[in-house]
Formats: sequence, structure tokens, C-alpha cells
Amino acid sequence: MTALAMEKVSDTNFGVFVNLIEKLAEYEKLLPPDADARERLAADALGEHPKYEAYLGKTGDTAFGYVTFYFTYSTFLARPTLYLEDIFVCEEYRGQGLGRAMLEFCRKVARDRGCGRMEWMVLDWNLPAIRFYEKTGARRLPWYVYRLDHDQL
Amino acid sequence: MTALAMEKVSDTNFGVFVNLIEKLAEYEKLLPPDADARERLAADALGEHPKYEAYLGKTGDTAFGYVTFYFTYSTFLARPTLYLEDIFVCEEYRGQGLGRAMLEFCRKVARDRGCGRMEWMVLDWNLPAIRFYEKTGARRLPWYVYRLDHDQL
Repeated sequence: MTALAMEKVSDTNFGVFVNLIEKLAEYEKLLPPDADARERLAADALGEHPKYEAYLGKTGDTAFGYVTFYFTYSTFLARPTLYLEDIFVCEEYRGQGLGRAMLEFCRKVARDRGCGRMEWMVLDWNLPAIRFYEKTGARRLPWYVYRLDHDQL
Repeated sequence: MTALAMEKVSDTNFGVFVNLIEKLAEYEKLLPPDADARERLAADALGEHPKYEAYLGKTGDTAFGYVTFYFTYSTFLARPTLYLEDIFVCEEYRGQGLGRAMLEFCRKVARDRGCGRMEWMVLDWNLPAIRFYEKTGARRLPWYVYRLDHDQL
């Protein structure tokens, strides 16, 4: 079996990354990024002060999925937190441990960068994802999440 | 009535900021930051690449509370999100709209910096805070939050 490799998203593989984002949007029944959003996604990952980091998961030449993350901060620990924004494996590649391997990659990044924690969120109806996360040993926190949308700012 | 002012945390007012963090820790029955954590809090707010931003809320010379925030990222919107980490008003200053004014300050920062959203979390038992947040027009999201702690990284 070909080993898994995590490849940082760059100018050369950015199109592959966007294709995978479109697949995730389709899975979540959300609109895919339009041309302006794709430009912002590129500038925000590849510019001098990146707003997020993105990595493709590959076996051989095939990109089967991706992760995006950034660093939040715990004032209680006085340490950064790795926050996992997206983790996605294309449907035809599921059930082979590839998602788990990508999550382990993120866990290592968190360790290597001196984080005090790693966190993420999951939609309450997404039972396959919840089962997957429960197996990592992560605990569900007793927090409610609030949001003000763009037209409320 | 003296107007509210938001004062960015700097070398000169850092001690005041730490005193307020200690008061919040006391309120939440958490350990206050030790000497190492205080040093990291200073370096992470005041260094060349800040990991978070902190502002004191003041009326006249009195710092009655503070906010800390940083910017996360929505790959769906392809825009940053202002994430409110802490918002704290000392008990003796509550009920005067000062918390609401600090939240409005954050909302303006989010607007000015091109954010697509503003988000925060609240502990499910903190009913006074929940009532406060519900009045802002924010909606509660159907998300579960998961965490891997430091010893699980």
C-alpha cells in the first residue's frame, strides 16, 4: 500500500484543493466558492501573513482529501490552540483510516508548534463524523456556540 | 456619565490586564495564570506577530473589564471571523450596559477588518451570559465542540 503524504497547498496544487472544497460543499449541500472567494482563499493561504493553512492528503499522485486549520489562543493556558476548520475525505476513499491519519498529522502539528490544545466542531446531525471524533479520545465540551452573521456586524 | 473607552493592552497597562484576568479566573473558579503564563500572555499579545488582541474597557481612569479576541477563518465564506475569546466585566460594574458596549466595540472591529462573521462560545450553565448574548441578536449554532487536551496531543 502506498503511504499517505500530506502536501502543503501552494500555487501549483491550488486547483486540486479548490476541487476538493467543491466536493465538500456538495456533500454539505452548501454553495461552492465563486471566483472572488477562490481568489480570497488563495491570497489568504499563500500570502505573506496566511490566515489559515491547508494540506492535501495524498496516496501516490491522488489527492483523496484535505485539512485546513489555523491557530486560536487560550488565555487560560496562555498557549495557542490548533483549530481544525475542515477535514474532508472524498466518499470513495472512506473507511480506510485516511481521515484518522490526517487527524494524526494535525495532532503532530499541534505538538510541534507548542499548542496547549486542539479543537474542532461538528454539526449535531453528522453522526458518522461524531462517531469518528469520539474514537480519537477527544471530549465534547459543554459549550454553546454563538454567531453574528455578516449582515449583523 | 463618563464615556466608555477601549484601550489596547500595551506594556504600560499590562499589569491592569493581568489583574482583570485573575478576577475572571476567580469568577470561573479556575487557576489564575502563573508567572510563566503571564510572560507568555505578554509576549503573545505584544510581540511582532500577536497571537491575540486585548483591550481594556475603561470609564475615566477605571478599567472595569476587558475583551480578548483573534481572527479565525471561514473557508466557506473565504473571509476571517472575529472570534471573541474573553469578555469580562467586574461584578461591581455589571448592569450598566458596559458589557454590551464592549461587544459593540468588537462588532465594529469585525466590520472594519473585513470579517464575514463574529463568533464566541459560552458555558452551558452560565445563564446570565446566555441571556446577555441572546439579546445581541446572535444565533446559537447546532455544533458540538470537541477538544484534545495537551496530554492527548
